Order: sequence, then C-alpha cells, then structure tokens
Amino acid sequence: MALQTDRTTVRREPHRGAYDRDTIYGILDAGFVCHMGFVHDGHPFVIPTSYWRIDDDLYVHGSSASRLLRTLSPGAEVCVTVTHVDGLVLARSAFNHSVNYRSVVVLGKASLLASNEEKTAALHAFTERLAPGRWEEIRYPNERELKATSVLKLPLAEASAKVRVGPPEDDAEDYAVNCWAGVIPFETLSRPPIPDDRLREGIPTPNYATHYTGPRR
Amino acid sequence: MALQTDRTTVRREPHRGAYDRDTIYGILDAGFVCHMGFVHDGHPFVIPTSYWRIDDDLYVHGSSASRLLRTLSPGAEVCVTVTHVDGLVLARSAFNHSVNYRSVVVLGKASLLASNEEKTAALHAFTERLAPGRWEEIRYPNERELKATSVLKLPLAEASAKVRVGPPEDDAEDYAVNCWAGVIPFETLSRPPIPDDRLREGIPTPNYATHYTGPRR
Repeated sequence: MALQTDRTTVRREPHRGAYDRDTIYGILDAGFVCHMGFVHDGHPFVIPTSYWRIDDDLYVHGSSASRLLRTLSPGAEVCVTVTHVDGLVLARSAFNHSVNYRSVVVLGKASLLASNEEKTAALHAFTERLAPGRWEEIRYPNERELKATSVLKLPLAEASAKVRVGPPEDDAEDYAVNCWAGVIPFETLSRPPIPDDRLREGIPTPNYATHYTGPRR
Repeated sequence: MALQTDRTTVRREPHRGAYDRDTIYGILDAGFVCHMGFVHDGHPFVIPTSYWRIDDDLYVHGSSASRLLRTLSPGAEVCVTVTHVDGLVLARSAFNHSVNYRSVVVLGKASLLASNEEKTAALHAFTERLAPGRWEEIRYPNERELKATSVLKLPLAEASAKVRVGPPEDDAEDYAVNCWAGVIPFETLSRPPIPDDRLREGIPTPNYATHYTGPRR
C-alpha cells in the first residue's frame, strides 16, 4: 500500500520527502512522544501524547475521560506528527539558516480498542518497547484501570517522512561571506536513573534503567 | 489579560496546569521547534516548525508558498504546542507509568507581518535568540528572500502550560510490589559544532557555537 497520497506529498523541498516504510518506521521507533492534532468544534487542537508502533499501526493511549479521547471516539480524523530535532544549521545568509530534523506525519482515522485483552496486549507492547523486561515485573492493569484507559489505533496507511541532514546550503556568492558556517548537533541522552525514595530495600536497578537504550523523545 | 479560557483549561490532572506568563514563557523560551496545528478542508494537520517569542507574541516563519502559510494567510485559527520531554516515569503498576514533561498550548489567530521592516526585525530577533551576535555576521535577507518568507504572529492571549515533575505516584498498596521504580531523566545537549567543509580559512568558531546555550528543541 502506498503511504504517499496527495495530502501527504511533501511540497516544500520535495527532495526531503520519503514515503517508504523503513524510513518512516525508523523515525517513529526513535521516539515515544508525538503531537496529535484533531478538530474539535471546528478548531484545531494539538496535544503531546505518548505513542508506540506495532507492525503497521500506531497506538496512543489516554484517559477515557479526556477531551481528546471523547472527541475521537467515533473514528474522527487525526494527524499524528513525530519530530526529532538533530541540529541547528547556521548558514552564511539569514535566509539559508535551517534545522536538521527527522519528522513523520501520519493522517487517518483512529479507532478505539474494544476489549480488555486487546488493550492489555497493546499496553504490554508499549511497556516492552520503553523498557524491555519490565512488563514481567510490574503490577498489571486491573479491570477498573483498563476501563479508565482508552487505547487508540491508527493504521499507518497514509504518511510521509521529511528529513534534513548535512551542512548549510548557501547561495554560490555567499560562500565568500566572512562568517562562520556549520551545524550545531543536538543529542538527547538519558541520565543516571533516579530511584524512587520509597523504593523497597534490596531491589537492584534494572539494566534497562542504568543503560537506557529505548526511545528518548 | 487572563491566558486561561474554557478552551485552555487543563482538565486531566488539573493540578499540573499553569496559566501564568512566567511559567508559559519559560517553557516557550527553552525551545525553538513547535508543532502547529491547523484545519485545511476540514482535516487536521500538524507540522513541526521553528518559532520564537517576542514579548507577548509568538512568531513562526516559513515559505510563502507552503500549504501552511497559504492556508493561514487570512487569519485562520491555529494551535501551537511546544513540548519538552524530561523523563520516563517508571511506576510499580502499569497504570501509573508516566512521562515528566513541560508543555504549552497556545490557541489563536495568526496574522502575517506585512512590511519588510517588520519581517526583518522579527527574523533579527529570532537569529539573536538562537545565536547571540550572529545577526551582525551574516548576509541579511534581500528583497526577493523577504518576499519568499512569510512571518506569522500569534498573540499569546489564550494559552496554558502543563507540567509533570517528580517521582512515580503509585497506589498505596503497590509500594509493596517487588519492582524497581523511579525516573529515567532525559537531557538534550549540544555537541561540538561541525564546521562547513567550505568554511573560509581563518574564521574562528564563534563562542555561541562552541558553547551553545540557546534553545535546543
């Protein structure tokens, strides 16, 4: 299935657009916080929320009582955007300053997972993606918590990636300008874990916390 | 003027909401990439774009030819959301897992800056915010470039912040669960600058690049 549609075609700087699943999934899997847009009473709203991917679907979850989830319940359209900011691109001209980034835009209709089994399986997958092995250690969601949690599934059927990498691209005559040019790279790192003050004695810090390698944004 | 309106009132976890300009401006000034939502043909769209604040207005810029800018030209409504992800909160129960974050949502109508003088002043302020001192070194935008650049101004009149900090909050009985709990903090750092391959000889790396202290996201 082609992820590129008229609506997801990158028009500005089209050479930065990509529509293959490898590129799109790679960008999605490098993070866990998206910005989800929806229309409520004709107005645009954008909220940050955590997400995860299972195969060809994107999942988000939230309180069943939230405005977002109540608005979206009947299969309303959403736009989910994920962005990683990789660097600041300092060119010789003001106009050619830019940002290095990787972003994905997904359009579609989200549907609610109906059964507790489906919800539990999706939350299991999310937990394992954030911290492999953790699901076996924690207290699982009970009936009341599952009822209070909505899980939305959005098919990865209409999407695009947009990526900028590399040095500044100045106009030919601007390379003579007497000005530093280059890239300031950014990197998001995890820091040493902070154990809860109320941690029971004798519980070692798990490897996934000491050496966090999961998605960071 | 009160930034809190019915639309910007935080309903989920209301104790995490804040509506004072100090909190909101602090979160905005810690970043430079926002997610801007708008409605086009009834559909929600969310695009990442850079932004900056001057006093009580938020600014974004882009190509005059972009879909975003063409859609928004007649003062259409937007939602601008800025999020900083500070940590992963690992609780003893699946349900109480969370994320530490600082986010701001701004609602309102954006208007286009009309004159080249206004545009140039706004772009000057943006450049200085990213890299103090740089504006004096670069080649300024010319007439053609200013025409190709749209700058949108969004009044900071209706907004809210939402912030989560601190350790996991487990249910009382879950503190007995035999499971590690705590926070994995994230931090976005700048790396040593990468000079452009075509940098002229004898140009030193400016201090703002070597010791980058500007907004990172």
